[in-house]
Amino acid sequence: MKNIDGGVTAPKGYRASGVRVGLKPGSEKEDCALVLSDEAATVSGMFTTSVMKAPPVHWDVKICEGGHARGVFINSVNANAATGEQGHKDVQATAERLAVALNVSDSEMCICSTGVIGVPMPMDLIFEGIDSCANSLSEGGSLAAATAIMTTDTIPKEFAVELPLTSGTVRLGAIAKGSGMISPNMATMICIVTTDAAIAPDLSQTLLRSAVRSSFNRISVDNDMSTSDTVLLFANGQSGISLEEGSADAAAFGETLTAFCQDAAKALVKDGEGATKFVEIAVSGTATDENAERIARAIGNSQLCKTAFFGQDPNWGRFACAAGYAGVDFDPAALDIRLGDVQLTQDGLVAEYAEEDAAAVMLKDEFRMELSVGNGPGKAVFWTSDLSHGYVSINADYRS
Amino acid sequence: MKNIDGGVTAPKGYRASGVRVGLKPGSEKEDCALVLSDEAATVSGMFTTSVMKAPPVHWDVKICEGGHARGVFINSVNANAATGEQGHKDVQATAERLAVALNVSDSEMCICSTGVIGVPMPMDLIFEGIDSCANSLSEGGSLAAATAIMTTDTIPKEFAVELPLTSGTVRLGAIAKGSGMISPNMATMICIVTTDAAIAPDLSQTLLRSAVRSSFNRISVDNDMSTSDTVLLFANGQSGISLEEGSADAAAFGETLTAFCQDAAKALVKDGEGATKFVEIAVSGTATDENAERIARAIGNSQLCKTAFFGQDPNWGRFACAAGYAGVDFDPAALDIRLGDVQLTQDGLVAEYAEEDAAAVMLKDEFRMELSVGNGPGKAVFWTSDLSHGYVSINADYRS
Repeated sequence: MKNIDGGVTAPKGYRASGVRVGLKPGSEKEDCALVLSDEAATVSGMFTTSVMKAPPVHWDVKICEGGHARGVFINSVNANAATGEQGHKDVQATAERLAVALNVSDSEMCICSTGVIGVPMPMDLIFEGIDSCANSLSEGGSLAAATAIMTTDTIPKEFAVELPLTSGTVRLGAIAKGSGMISPNMATMICIVTTDAAIAPDLSQTLLRSAVRSSFNRISVDNDMSTSDTVLLFANGQSGISLEEGSADAAAFGETLTAFCQDAAKALVKDGEGATKFVEIAVSGTATDENAERIARAIGNSQLCKTAFFGQDPNWGRFACAAGYAGVDFDPAALDIRLGDVQLTQDGLVAEYAEEDAAAVMLKDEFRMELSVGNGPGKAVFWTSDLSHGYVSINADYRS
Repeated sequence: MKNIDGGVTAPKGYRASGVRVGLKPGSEKEDCALVLSDEAATVSGMFTTSVMKAPPVHWDVKICEGGHARGVFINSVNANAATGEQGHKDVQATAERLAVALNVSDSEMCICSTGVIGVPMPMDLIFEGIDSCANSLSEGGSLAAATAIMTTDTIPKEFAVELPLTSGTVRLGAIAKGSGMISPNMATMICIVTTDAAIAPDLSQTLLRSAVRSSFNRISVDNDMSTSDTVLLFANGQSGISLEEGSADAAAFGETLTAFCQDAAKALVKDGEGATKFVEIAVSGTATDENAERIARAIGNSQLCKTAFFGQDPNWGRFACAAGYAGVDFDPAALDIRLGDVQLTQDGLVAEYAEEDAAAVMLKDEFRMELSVGNGPGKAVFWTSDLSHGYVSINADYRS
């Protein structure tokens, strides 16, 4: 795959926009975004597993079950979560307004909201945002859309790649926002992926599930899942290339989709709240991939490991300790830990290394840790940030 | 039960000591502790479930399987964890030295170590500590022992109560240290409980398991389980009161043991690293107690909730959000959240309350949060601290 410009509108037949209607008083940033396919597209989605799913999530789940949509409208600042019956009515009203503004059916538009929990949606402003977004759609609108969906993200995130297949070239585009929280409540991880390949809904869902499992489900900023986490994949077929289940092209597309989602997921971690480090944790030697993932996740979520990352402390006792409580049976005497190219432990015992070499690895903004716990075939990679004073400050500040 | 003085030596027939042999250069604090029953006692234990169990934990597990012991030797500063075969040999050597110094069998002494991981034990100093502890045993030695086992704890923790039973009065005593970490590696939660009741090993293990489940297993400072977490209960029968399985006295003792362990557990949270808040989280209305515990634990471990505690922010969206991802099915429309005596949500929607009233609750050092998620009979209580800049500073500081 080759990186290209254009973000979510890089694939053929998509337009996007981002506008500011003032959902957050005092903010100069765009707050409403629209991504639209010119023609009908298939859609698949992956969502938060929280029982506190926000009304827009319920709406999108239903649309993805149907498998067809034209696009998605997203607002930041207000998550429309824990808003009860009124929240569902507001989603319906949003869909109806989109139908009128875009001349589509009200069951053809997905809706995402990210921001404060428990506050009724200011529907007059949302309607204004829909109309304004509809009027400013363009093939160059990806950056404005990526900016509009930001909450505590410090940079807009857009991605696009070109992928040559045996039957021709297709493109993938995306905008994403991070798993940070905004004052006063939690926000959401959202990623909208577009492609101009033609993919049937079932195949699309299968490919997306697999990609998300190895990307967005392998990252942690603070281990707090939101009420609104959403990944949507639109496929409008405008490239003229169709992916058939079981074909080599479908497999190649799936691999690229996974790598593409991993790039987006890593970008979310790097821009995580207060993050000063980006750490890749690779675990191997377990009986299964699931067990490797469990160990990697335990380390990636450990407050102790994350403060060690922040402190640039090659404190392998903490890494071994988190591996130990991951709920995976392994022989401690088989534990090898490497930090960058420095071997910290061998066969469960401290290895011979210079402390300053290990510390030097952690001085970098990004580094990799490898743990091997045996001879099994299982392996997994996980990406995490550190736990810094910045994180505490961002999330402990009183609502203002 | 009535609180009394004397800590771990308050029950009849126990002596204790704490000495300094200089395991940590520059520290003036005691670092070796001994608790000894004058006569044979039964012993039961609860231990870390980590696969990285330290050699002393393996040793104590084996002794508790036998059900009889005379006491326990504890050192701080070095955890004798991830020390491989040498670690096991050092435990054996420690036991043999104890046997000589105390004129007991080498299979009658439990051993606990807490401190740095992956560093060989300085056995000359440990031998010195054993001999010195043996020579300074006294009925007034509890405070010295409680001080010797401290790592990042800021205050020594000792507890004692007197419990009138139908057949007479028994006493419980304890020393404990917190679930904090010491530079450069993690330490351990250790609690040594003594009683002068006579309890058979099986009953003792049953009572201890039940007590720990509702106390030490219901607390969180940072959700990081150590390689060495240990709770031991010694029962030497010197009160002349014997507890029979199924008796009212055994039930009363069990209840008191639970409350006693809860007091110790809460003390660990209050002295948690960087802790500025002590929060009791009470969840009810679930189908089972396990489900209630799961929700309470999710909130108590959430970085977002813990930073909100630190920020004194009555941010109920975060509490609801953590409840939502706890893996327990409940109806969001049934969620009631109370903070102190202020109702924040009713039937899943924001309730009418004055923001300053809710904020006032969180200004206190200690407060209680109640969540009800339905009409089920399940309930659980969990205790947690906040996530503060102090926590990050303590754990991010480079080894020095």
